Amino acid sequence: MSTTSDTMDTAAANEAVIRAVEKGKAASATLAALPHEQRNRALRNAAEHLAARESAIIEANEGDLAQAEKQVKEGTLNHSLLHRLKLNSSKLRDVIVGITQVTEQQDPLSRVTLSRELDEGLALYRVSCPIGLIAVIFESRPDALPQITSLCLKSGNGVILKGGSEARLTNRVLFDCFRAGMHKAGLPTDAIALVETREAIKVLLDADQLIDLVVPRGSNQLVSYIQANTRIPVLGHAEGICHMYVDRKADIVMAVKITIDAKTQYPAACNSVETLLLHEGVALPFMQALAAELQSTNQAIRLLCDKRTMALIPEGFPLILEPAKEEDWSTEYGEETLSVKTVDTLSDAIVHINKYGSHHTEAIITSDRGAFDTFFAQVNSAGVFWNASTRFADGFRYGFGAEVGISTGKLHPRGPVGLEGLVTYKYKVVGKGHIVADYVGDEARKFTHVDIEDHSAQ
Amino acid sequence: MSTTSDTMDTAAANEAVIRAVEKGKAASATLAALPHEQRNRALRNAAEHLAARESAIIEANEGDLAQAEKQVKEGTLNHSLLHRLKLNSSKLRDVIVGITQVTEQQDPLSRVTLSRELDEGLALYRVSCPIGLIAVIFESRPDALPQITSLCLKSGNGVILKGGSEARLTNRVLFDCFRAGMHKAGLPTDAIALVETREAIKVLLDADQLIDLVVPRGSNQLVSYIQANTRIPVLGHAEGICHMYVDRKADIVMAVKITIDAKTQYPAACNSVETLLLHEGVALPFMQALAAELQSTNQAIRLLCDKRTMALIPEGFPLILEPAKEEDWSTEYGEETLSVKTVDTLSDAIVHINKYGSHHTEAIITSDRGAFDTFFAQVNSAGVFWNASTRFADGFRYGFGAEVGISTGKLHPRGPVGLEGLVTYKYKVVGKGHIVADYVGDEARKFTHVDIEDHSAQ
Repeated sequence: MSTTSDTMDTAAANEAVIRAVEKGKAASATLAALPHEQRNRALRNAAEHLAARESAIIEANEGDLAQAEKQVKEGTLNHSLLHRLKLNSSKLRDVIVGITQVTEQQDPLSRVTLSRELDEGLALYRVSCPIGLIAVIFESRPDALPQITSLCLKSGNGVILKGGSEARLTNRVLFDCFRAGMHKAGLPTDAIALVETREAIKVLLDADQLIDLVVPRGSNQLVSYIQANTRIPVLGHAEGICHMYVDRKADIVMAVKITIDAKTQYPAACNSVETLLLHEGVALPFMQALAAELQSTNQAIRLLCDKRTMALIPEGFPLILEPAKEEDWSTEYGEETLSVKTVDTLSDAIVHINKYGSHHTEAIITSDRGAFDTFFAQVNSAGVFWNASTRFADGFRYGFGAEVGISTGKLHPRGPVGLEGLVTYKYKVVGKGHIVADYVGDEARKFTHVDIEDHSAQ
Repeated sequence: MSTTSDTMDTAAANEAVIRAVEKGKAASATLAALPHEQRNRALRNAAEHLAARESAIIEANEGDLAQAEKQVKEGTLNHSLLHRLKLNSSKLRDVIVGITQVTEQQDPLSRVTLSRELDEGLALYRVSCPIGLIAVIFESRPDALPQITSLCLKSGNGVILKGGSEARLTNRVLFDCFRAGMHKAGLPTDAIALVETREAIKVLLDADQLIDLVVPRGSNQLVSYIQANTRIPVLGHAEGICHMYVDRKADIVMAVKITIDAKTQYPAACNSVETLLLHEGVALPFMQALAAELQSTNQAIRLLCDKRTMALIPEGFPLILEPAKEEDWSTEYGEETLSVKTVDTLSDAIVHINKYGSHHTEAIITSDRGAFDTFFAQVNSAGVFWNASTRFADGFRYGFGAEVGISTGKLHPRGPVGLEGLVTYKYKVVGKGHIVADYVGDEARKFTHVDIEDHSAQ
């Protein structure tokens, strides 16, 4: 009996998800046509609601935390999750500041990126517009909800939010604040929806006729699962295997400083470096300088080296080096471990990166402009850095205000995805009754194809 | 024995395809770094070879045609294919002119679309770059090969060409002209490859670690098959279900003229209109004017109408109207057939289009600017036209020089895809040893995030 009832509950829950998606799709078309000021007003209202309901939010979060702590004690939940789950006054204030920053950004919609007269009275424009309905699947962090929702509403997109079940109570209050803010500003509240069951993920991934983009925010496993199980375009990355190449003409002191930052400043981040490639001309002095710096600052990095690097190192070297295995070149450690390989040339470094990398972010340390130019042209990753830490690959640091994720795909949007990455474009053609038949045959009219400088006419 | 031998041949052929793809991937990284002038020189060389080898090309094409004619007689090939397969002097001249036009276009690479100082000495740039390696799967038209290859080389992309088997001999000569032109200009010739077997398609679709984009050019069935059988992004469209909405405030004469153009000027094209939506206030006068125009010009369009439109039509109406079925709203006729529906409001028309459309191109006929603005904002298609025929949705007519296809996806590239659609971007970060650790904690440096006007510094 219990199974039947569960099945029925699941079926009913899935039906509710489908209905939410259908309503979301319809509402997103309405949302797309609303002016910037109205979308911003909804965000400002939401921020006010979040501030006014601080105690309710914190109470809900304490409920989630109490439940999670119980599960941690029972051993069914990892302790590290508690920190991510917690939403206190200070974090809530950051959330509200973040929403305000989003309102202050320029409208990403209705930007004209191409204006061309095709013929007298016939004009072509390329105009930015929302993508449509976005499904965001995220894990325990409840502060992800307001960040994602404000980016989506600002860019005129509907959003279906699938939050982590651990943050269920907190997410509900946060979500209510946005719905209330939208209602007050006259936005269609169905343009956002919160779905909660694990089964909802499958329903969302199957809804390729209604959902235009899926954004997974979570573990590599979650992202890989989603990429393998939907026909909807997926924005994100399963892996961040970032490289740093220390060129023949590198400033060794700089290379050591950047390597330590890129590996240790926050090793769990996707933009941390995983593989160090050393030009054979600098491999030994670099390793010696790295060892000295790690010792003097009392830091430790586990170094997995290829045979060639091992062979370069003299006896009595102060660090323990372990041999790297083939799989290390494609491993994202997420901790203070670095694989190290010595290469003959810049070209070998590029080949290694394009073979083993995940197209996220790669850096070269060199004083040779030509080496950087070659590296930049030939490495096909979303970020290619010169004399800077890979850790800068981030929407906030790029000045995008916030990001919904980092895309390692080859097509747009690529890299950290902020408001500009959440819009696409339509071609607008304005005629006065123009027909194609006039442009074919022996007496065909010719297209003028003159770019229009003054956009105001459109 | 024959089966074993065939299997072995297939295995060897597939192995050859994989090798071509691997070489193509490596060569495309080299190609990406070559200057515009060198890429253009290869195209000019190829055009010269095509001109010089005209008789060889036409002879090869005659061989293909003879074989195809045999198959048409045997009933294993459709007669209409012969016209598409034929490549005569005049068509070859058009091909050569097309390549020259591509060389005359601006370099789509290395364009800087964002320049920002992040902090003193630390700068961010967004720079256009090739997508990487593109697989193009096309059917009988041999003139597709030079068009696609020149767009790909101009945009720095490698390309694996899978041509139709009917055009095998012609394709080989055309391909050789490009290889020779590339060789002479110092381009890596492996950046283009021609594969011929039907089995190669599956090998290409499985190569998601090497191929960055698949472009199918052919029947709806081919495109649907490819979309369903690869994890590589697919650029294109399976269906072109375009709509025309005749608004309450439409100029009826203009609406009739555009409808006839959009339906009959070239009914097999994807940008031809399939469904006509009529505001109830103009439905009857529009239908009367359409009937009069079709009669006076001796043209015929088969009209499949919803009940409401049928009910509006008085006795003695000069055209035969047939009842539309539900599936007609999502059918691409490809011939002089049009489904017709009467709606109450602009809003109903938009809901119909967003429900049944294929996000290709839709037009509204109206003298009401506000109605167009609402239509433009709410219809989520790659092209949204005002008082112009949907048949203008085309790379050449948009002034893109040529196109590899029309994308009905929601993300970039969208609509007719020319050179700009064949590039993506990378973020370039240039520092002087900048590390993230300096930007966190109590004494964190602040980012300046000042947009840079002078791009020359990069």
